[in-house]
Parts: sequence; structure tokens; C-alpha cells
Amino acid sequence: MTSPSPSPSSSSSPSSPSSSPASFQEMWRDLAPLGRDPGSGGYRRYAWTAADGDCRAWFRVQAEARGLTCEVDRNGNQWAWLGDPLAGDAVVTGSHLDSVPDGGAFDGPLGVVSSFAALDELRRRGARFTRPLAITNFGDEEGARFGLACVGSRLTAGRLTLAQAHALRDGDGVTLPRAMEAAGYDPDALGPDPERLARIGAFVELHVEQGRALDLSGDPVGIASAIWPHGRWRFDFHGEANHAGTTRLADRRDPMPPYAETVLAARREAELAGALATFGKVAVEPNGVNAIPSLVRGWLDSRAADQQALDTVVAAVESAARDAADRAGVDLRVVRESFTPVVEFEHALRDELARILAHRPHPAAGTGRAPGPYAGTGPEPSARSTAPEPRPRPGTGGRSVPVLGTGAGHDAGILSGSIPTAMLFVRNPTGVSHSPAESATEDDCVAGVLALADVLEGLACA
Amino acid sequence: MTSPSPSPSSSSSPSSPSSSPASFQEMWRDLAPLGRDPGSGGYRRYAWTAADGDCRAWFRVQAEARGLTCEVDRNGNQWAWLGDPLAGDAVVTGSHLDSVPDGGAFDGPLGVVSSFAALDELRRRGARFTRPLAITNFGDEEGARFGLACVGSRLTAGRLTLAQAHALRDGDGVTLPRAMEAAGYDPDALGPDPERLARIGAFVELHVEQGRALDLSGDPVGIASAIWPHGRWRFDFHGEANHAGTTRLADRRDPMPPYAETVLAARREAELAGALATFGKVAVEPNGVNAIPSLVRGWLDSRAADQQALDTVVAAVESAARDAADRAGVDLRVVRESFTPVVEFEHALRDELARILAHRPHPAAGTGRAPGPYAGTGPEPSARSTAPEPRPRPGTGGRSVPVLGTGAGHDAGILSGSIPTAMLFVRNPTGVSHSPAESATEDDCVAGVLALADVLEGLACA
Repeated sequence: MTSPSPSPSSSSSPSSPSSSPASFQEMWRDLAPLGRDPGSGGYRRYAWTAADGDCRAWFRVQAEARGLTCEVDRNGNQWAWLGDPLAGDAVVTGSHLDSVPDGGAFDGPLGVVSSFAALDELRRRGARFTRPLAITNFGDEEGARFGLACVGSRLTAGRLTLAQAHALRDGDGVTLPRAMEAAGYDPDALGPDPERLARIGAFVELHVEQGRALDLSGDPVGIASAIWPHGRWRFDFHGEANHAGTTRLADRRDPMPPYAETVLAARREAELAGALATFGKVAVEPNGVNAIPSLVRGWLDSRAADQQALDTVVAAVESAARDAADRAGVDLRVVRESFTPVVEFEHALRDELARILAHRPHPAAGTGRAPGPYAGTGPEPSARSTAPEPRPRPGTGGRSVPVLGTGAGHDAGILSGSIPTAMLFVRNPTGVSHSPAESATEDDCVAGVLALADVLEGLACA
Repeated sequence: MTSPSPSPSSSSSPSSPSSSPASFQEMWRDLAPLGRDPGSGGYRRYAWTAADGDCRAWFRVQAEARGLTCEVDRNGNQWAWLGDPLAGDAVVTGSHLDSVPDGGAFDGPLGVVSSFAALDELRRRGARFTRPLAITNFGDEEGARFGLACVGSRLTAGRLTLAQAHALRDGDGVTLPRAMEAAGYDPDALGPDPERLARIGAFVELHVEQGRALDLSGDPVGIASAIWPHGRWRFDFHGEANHAGTTRLADRRDPMPPYAETVLAARREAELAGALATFGKVAVEPNGVNAIPSLVRGWLDSRAADQQALDTVVAAVESAARDAADRAGVDLRVVRESFTPVVEFEHALRDELARILAHRPHPAAGTGRAPGPYAGTGPEPSARSTAPEPRPRPGTGGRSVPVLGTGAGHDAGILSGSIPTAMLFVRNPTGVSHSPAESATEDDCVAGVLALADVLEGLACA
């Protein structure tokens, strides 16, 4: 079921928390064990599973401890409101809590934890809110279970229909509606939510960087310029199953060598174009040690800074694949499974963030510290107390904050077609992402919280 | 449970069948639907499954219809005896009825069906048996379920221990003992059976050829010289999981490109050495479209006519893999999972077969007919009557029968370390094997039956 709309609060000034909210460290400590696999150390927080439910319960506890009004929208996204949700022109921040298989601790949760911590920081500063504020946890951002990313935001933005959502099926054949029902939600309520979006004036998502641009530039925090155009292409090499021990090389129609040539072509063409191209998923039939495959199916993920570069890479890879398939007597079918054009975040909002962050002290930049206690591969976040504290804020501005593109998709990218959106990135010292080894230093996480607090203060406070 | 030893028959001359035995066509017709997948048209007759049980029941019916005494040995292999099993110096023929995933109709069953048909032919000729004869169905030859080939013959020959057999586990985690128990057999009885082997004077296995040597030479039937040395090597490329959309190429430790280079090296080196090398099975972790893999595991199957050529190929492939892994910053581990040295079939028995087959008319050679009604991809074997009939046998010899090596493993190869063994191959017009498209013409199948009958007559009859 979806929760009813909350009783709108009559005041848009900060409410008093109903109990003492968890500190930054306490929030991480409470989240740390949820959905973590003891073997890999990675997270397996898939949509509508018990681990996902645990994360949602954590979100509700955090919201309520801060006196926020918690609701679940028709698409299963969680919203925690400060002020009147119906007043309009709301400032919304947040991210997601689900994970890829064996994901790291930060991808998603950093944005949610930092949102609550930024609110705590603004209250410490005594900030006066002039616009409603909401913190969100978007459902099924990673698409780890049903194969489609950003399901919650896509539905809300009208970029996924009820029928399409109902056709989604996980690896065990469980449909999305069955999974939602089992978790206590109403799958028949899924659908676009334009009234909700119309009441949002700005959405800002903070996210751990998934590359090394900030590490290379020496900045703890950056602003997103755009999400690169990207797509997914399935290459099906159809050969002929045969006995690996008896079939002469000349008689084979083996699809594995042309697949291999295509992998190498993808790497080569991406290098030439300054783009990215990856074969990370393969399915082989019959996949027997002593059987020449009848089918090798490989998925190409490719992204580039602009459409032309992406087109060049994909066309060159497909051409190389066709040549290799022809030489091997193998049939090739290429299917574009998904494609997302470039997302340019709204320039006005992006420039506003840059202006706000340029006129503040530059916190904790380039301390050169090794990954701190929040590093995904290390122990649970330590309890040592380094909660973000108010810092001296000189009246003059610091250095400017870098603006960078990214190859990763986000809920902010989906929503940018409907409302003004922006993103903040927090430095990732290794660039490792979608892995238990993903990390961020404690200082950089704190810098992210302070930057987000500054942005929210600039946008939503007097 | 294992069946008790049969009451030995008091006569070693042909018994009268207790009912009219099925003709060659009728045997194929009855076998055709057992374990066949309606989608692929291929067979899925895996050890100790219901389909395997159906094939075993078929074997028992055929044996009993011919007045043979049927028993199951301690390792689950079926034996159908004509004459006294304890008399010693028995002549044994047969093959297996299980299949690879989506296997063809002939690999295994051709040897069993032809054995029964050859016995029928000898009875039509009025042959007088001077040695006991047995027809066998060896269990789990293909190893499709538990990953190890020739389990039944390995156990009997003492080349697989009880403990090793009990540790085998299928893809669903079911152990071999549990699977045997579920099928009504006693897994604690497994073990070597030297007394049984000591009572066998010769084992002859007829098998469809799994390559095109007979097609190229224009012969319907050939004799095996040797089984090539062969082995299986697992290449584990350990990289670093990362986000495919955000990780710079220069920062990647992607194991897929070095895997791809290794696939191409295997093909190249096999061509240079006149050997075979195949990567037919791959496992990728986490195997996500937008994830650089942490692990690509590929299995190399390689075989060659002699040990030196095989060593050369494998060393060159491993060297290329190490170079590619080093360049990609990827760790490589290579594990030899199995290895079988060259098997030379006993020269005396092989020469005896060649002598017998050279002094008979050369049946149905090179008729140039298209694959007949027994082709695996065609309809069920037709009922049109072309049962092997006695043919005129001139006293003078025909042309000599080709002697050829093979890259495929067989129960005959396992048993050759314990008893004199030989193999007959029947032409495969396309060379396709381990596939529903495997085929053999009706004329060639009949030629195989007549050749086997001649061999059994020469070895076991007055």
C-alpha cells in the first residue's frame, strides 16, 4: 500500500526534533550491517527484499527523530518533509539506499545520510527555512534485481508505464508486482506523479564520485555538469555447437573467437575516442568445457562525453564484430537494449550551486589522508566523534568548485527532464565504484555534508 | 541397490529369445522420445534422472526380449549376458545411453542399439558362441551432471575412489550419493571391480564418429587407433570490480580483454600445432552489464595427436595469457583440472578387428546418400523396414578399413588400462557432435551393425 499524504505542517520553519537525532557516525553505524554479505563484505540491498525493507525502516526512524513527516509515494519512493509538502517550490535532496550486487557502502547512502546531516547542520546554524524541504530515498535506483535502473524515479517522471513496470521480472522469475506485494506495497498504484513534481522547485542529489576526477584535481567536492549519453548493446554470436575434442578447426563455427575480437575492438575504439566501452556480462550456451558454443552473447556498455563520440565507438565495434563473425562463419545479431541521450543539468541551478560554494570556506580540501574509517573494505564505521561541527565562515569566497561530467546514471538524471536538478559529487580516492572496495575519507564526507548544507541554506533559507 | 549376480546360464550357445525382439527401427523408435527436450530437439539424459531411468528400463526390456540375463554392477553399469558371466574370457560390447546437454541421438545409443542388433544378426546367421557375450550400458559416461566423464567405468577400473565419487555434486548441489539413492541405487557399494574385469577377454565399443575423418576418406566404418592426450585448464583472471560508466580506461584492471586475448591465442596456437584448443565455458563475476568484472574464469580444453604437441599449445596459450594479464594489471592463475595421457588401444585386438573386417564384403560404402531418417534434427526414425538382413558374404576380403585417432574420451579408453579394448567408428557426414544436429545415415548405421556382428562373430563364435 502507499501511505496517505501526510497532514501538512502549518509551519515552514524548522520543527524541533521529537528526539535527539542520530549523529553522522551513528547513522553510518546503524546502516552498516543492513544487507551486508559477510563473505564479500559488499552490500546486497535489492529492491523489495528484506534488506531493502531494513533500509526503509532506518530512513523512517531518521525522519521521525528529526520531526519530519514521512510518506511513501505511489511508486514506493520515501519522502521526509520539513514544512508543507503542498506549498510548492520545495527544495528536495536525497538519493537511494539500494545497491548493486556486492556494492559499496557509499553509492546511494552517502546522499541520504548527508541530507539528514546537512539538515542537522542547518539547525545548528539556526537557519530559517523559507521553502519546504524534503529528503528522499528513491526506490530501486540500481536496478540490480529487475534489470532496469531508476525504476522509482522513472515511474514518477512518467518515463516508465505501469504495464512496463508490471512486466519486469527478477532472475527467479518473480515479477515486480509480486515483489512489491510481498513487501507490503500496492503495485497497482504505480504511475506518473506530475502533481508531486510540480510542487518541487529544485532537486539536489549528493553522490560519491564514481571516477577519479576529483582525486586528480585535488578537490573534495564537485558539481555535475552533465551525464554522458550511454547505451547498452547486446551482441549475439550464433555459431554451431560441436564437440571440442573432435571437430577440426576448419570445420568449426565457433562464436567465441569473434566475441573475443569484439572485446578487444571495444577497448581499442574507446581508447581512440576518449570514451568508455566495456563487456562486463557474457552468457554462453551450452557453456560446457568440452563443447564448442552454439551461442556467445556479450553486452557492450558504452558512454562518451558527446553523442558523436559514442556513435563512432559503437559503429566501429559493430563493424569489427561483423568482420570477425564473417571470418568465423558465425551469425551476428546486434540489439540496442537501452539508450539514454546526454543529460545536461539545468544551467541556472548549476550556476547557483557554483556561486554558493565559491563564496564559502573550502573545507578539508586535499588533506591527503588515507581512506578513513568509512572505507568500504575496512571495519564498520568507527564511533570516534568527528561529527560535522559549525566551522568559521569567512565572508569572502574560497576557490571555485570543479564542474564535471559523469558516465553514471542517476535519479537526478531521470528527474532533470521534469524539474530543475543538480548534483554534488564527493571525492572517491580510488575511483572504485560498484564494489566493496569503494571508499571515501571521513574528511571528504564531512566536506560533502557542509557543501550540501550550504547549498540548501542558499536555496531554501532566508 | 545393486542387483545380485544373475544365475549363470548353463549354456554358452545362443538362447532362444523369450519374445520377438524389437527390430533395429523399433529400438530407435522406442528410444527416440526418452529425455528429448521438445524445444531444442536435443537429449538431456543425465545420470540418475528420470530420463536416465527410462533409458535403463529400455535396456532391460531389450535384454529380456532376447533371453539375456540383465544385471546392474556395483557402480550402476548395466550388463546383459548371453552365456555364463563367470566362465571368463567374455567378449563384451556396448556403450552408454546418457547424453550431454542437448546432445544428439547417436552419441552412446548407437553403440548399445547396434550391439543388440548385431546379436540379432548373428542369431540369423546361426552363429555358435564359444565365449560368453555381454552387452553393456555404462553409467554417466558424459559427466553432464556431475562434471566428471566416465564415472561408471572409472569406478569399475579403480580410477575413481568411493570418496572422490561421493564428493561429486551437481549444479543444484545434489551429491552423487543422494542422486543415486533417489534413483533407487546404493551409493555405498561403489568401488573397483577387478574380479569382473578379470573375466573379460575383450571389450569392443561401437560409436558414431565425432569428426569427419571417415567422411573425408569415404568409409562408413573405421577402427580406433588411439585417443589423443587431452586436458582441461582453468584460467582465472582476477581484476578489480568497478563501474563501467565512470572508471577511466587507464584506471581499470579489467580481466575481460586478457581473457579475449587468450581465446585468440588458443585458436592461433592450435592451428600452428595441428591440435585442438577451445574455450567453451566462461564464468564472469559479477556479470553485470555496467560492471567491470572482478573475475573472468575461462576453461581451455586442448587435445593433440601427441603429448609434445599438446604441451606446446598449452605452454604458448599460458604464456600469451600471462603477457596479456600483466599488461592489464590483472592477476592470472592457471589450474590444470584434468589430464588424460594418450590411450593406445591394444594393438593385437585392433589388428584382429582389421583382419576380420578386411575379409568381408564392404557394406554400403560411399553411397553418397543424404543423412537418412536417423538424423538427429529430422523426424523420429521412420518405420520403413530396412532392418539389417543377412547379406551375401564372399569368401574373399574387401578393402581395408581405416584406422583413426580421436580426440574424444570414451569408456573404452578408461577400460583399456585394465583389459584389451577396441573401438569401431561409424561415419558422421557432418562431423557434428554433442548437438541435436549430430547425424548418421541409415546405410552407415546398418554398415556399423554388420561390422560389429562380423567382429563379434570373429571373436566369440566357432
